Amino acid sequence: MVVTLLASPLAADPLPSWNAGETRSAIIAFVDAVTDPTSDDYVTPSDRIAVFDNDGTLWAEQPVYFQLYFALDQVKKMDASSLNSDALKAAAAGDIEALLATGKDGILEVLAVAHTGMSVADFKATVDEWLAEATHPTTGKPYTAMVYQPMLELLSYLRDEDFATYIVSGGGIDFIRVLSEDAYNIPVNQVIGSSLISEYVADGDSPALMKKPDLFFNDDKAGKPVAINHHIGKRPIFAGGNSDGDFQMLEWTTSGDGPAFGLYVHHTDAEREWAYDREGHIGVLNRGLEEGGNRGWYFADMAQDWAVIWPEE
Amino acid sequence: MVVTLLASPLAADPLPSWNAGETRSAIIAFVDAVTDPTSDDYVTPSDRIAVFDNDGTLWAEQPVYFQLYFALDQVKKMDASSLNSDALKAAAAGDIEALLATGKDGILEVLAVAHTGMSVADFKATVDEWLAEATHPTTGKPYTAMVYQPMLELLSYLRDEDFATYIVSGGGIDFIRVLSEDAYNIPVNQVIGSSLISEYVADGDSPALMKKPDLFFNDDKAGKPVAINHHIGKRPIFAGGNSDGDFQMLEWTTSGDGPAFGLYVHHTDAEREWAYDREGHIGVLNRGLEEGGNRGWYFADMAQDWAVIWPEE
Repeated sequence: MVVTLLASPLAADPLPSWNAGETRSAIIAFVDAVTDPTSDDYVTPSDRIAVFDNDGTLWAEQPVYFQLYFALDQVKKMDASSLNSDALKAAAAGDIEALLATGKDGILEVLAVAHTGMSVADFKATVDEWLAEATHPTTGKPYTAMVYQPMLELLSYLRDEDFATYIVSGGGIDFIRVLSEDAYNIPVNQVIGSSLISEYVADGDSPALMKKPDLFFNDDKAGKPVAINHHIGKRPIFAGGNSDGDFQMLEWTTSGDGPAFGLYVHHTDAEREWAYDREGHIGVLNRGLEEGGNRGWYFADMAQDWAVIWPEE
Repeated sequence: MVVTLLASPLAADPLPSWNAGETRSAIIAFVDAVTDPTSDDYVTPSDRIAVFDNDGTLWAEQPVYFQLYFALDQVKKMDASSLNSDALKAAAAGDIEALLATGKDGILEVLAVAHTGMSVADFKATVDEWLAEATHPTTGKPYTAMVYQPMLELLSYLRDEDFATYIVSGGGIDFIRVLSEDAYNIPVNQVIGSSLISEYVADGDSPALMKKPDLFFNDDKAGKPVAINHHIGKRPIFAGGNSDGDFQMLEWTTSGDGPAFGLYVHHTDAEREWAYDREGHIGVLNRGLEEGGNRGWYFADMAQDWAVIWPEE
């Protein structure tokens, strides 16, 4: 009786920021099918695993990855006498163009300053401070305000239907873990990302995990299915991405025996966000556009499918 | 009213197979403290993370690691004409002494036969078949019957008190995941272990994760805190092990700011299990015995603290 009084006969709209359309309908039909015990497509709750790219899928990534802004801001704190390379000087000046002109080695040098030589705990504290104060150069918003409201609703909808939601990002695992709980309601153990070697050092007063310069794992492209297996140990049934770096994750997810859903966020809205796909230095979506339709994947066309982009709208 | 009728005023004994003693009392006092919201040592449920070694801590490891028996049994299936080394011949004959005499390279050759050149899915299916049929050479029991009943109770007790229980093993992550749910009630995403490189291959009909010969991560000693950070992203508050390979895991767990518990299983029972510690080729516990007491860690003396060893007793 109490249950009857509390339960609403019609569930509230789970995706209020999604416009009516093929993609929205397909998401809801998929979730209905895998959660309906009488459906042939029913999936037991412990196998309802959903994986999402972060940059360009859950939050914005233009004009450059936000983690690079973090690195620039750390270089800006350095003593001027330590800026002994063109890359460091460009970073300290906030001159992205000049930094990119120094090439991959220059970018890695800047990233190393911000990401190595300290403990994981100290790194996370630095990221936490930065997130609290830094603002995006174009929008002026805090970076954590540049998450996509429709994707927050999708994450929440999936969790309400007993999915476990994971981030599987080419960005840094230690970086994203600082914001995942507050920004996405995703616990840190459900964040998968790229990482540097870390070393356990116990020669001082208390042991620490120190961040070293060498790459441990590059969680991009074919690395994503590998990392999914390593961390989760099961094949997901829902994958969301926005670039060709996510292609293999969607491919792996939708190649299992049972039902599965592949979703590409397509950046089509130059007015409210950015419009880009086949070309550029970030978030290139080419093969995904070519093959996604034939593979049965759906596209969230930001201009068309999303009634709002940002949470505060 | 319904709640009052259903709830027992005195909880059932959570550790019935543990004899009364210092270690049992300390475990219960710790769990009581971290779960009591009025205690200074209270820990919020999402931070109640417990990590356990597997071989020698949750199940037996003598006379050699059970995963090595799995490898031997795979070599036995090989065509005789393919046994082109002393190591493979010894393995096919089930002659552990002769295999160990071939040294590290010989053992790695045998492990490679059983663990590489197939997909993760095929490997898991092979392990699953093996576990269903194989029996331990000394006890004649299925390997999954050689788990420690007192540790099953400890895992269950911790989960009942809203801990997340993880395995952090030097053994293979793909191997342990085949048995973790049935044997320990631990989901596969909470299994951490050593692993080989796996490669995503999508050139055939359907993509696969192929197991390659090179080591990806050795989850032993100082690798355990590194892997804990990588997979869980938080410092545990409870760690259980049985050898010096677990020392750094216990050290890391008990070096945080808040309350923490370090537990060593001490193999002291030659009649019911095996007795070994400072010497041997497996499960050496030397530094742990020297320093554990001063570090505030507790020891489960199997002969003294455990009323039963195996589940069926």
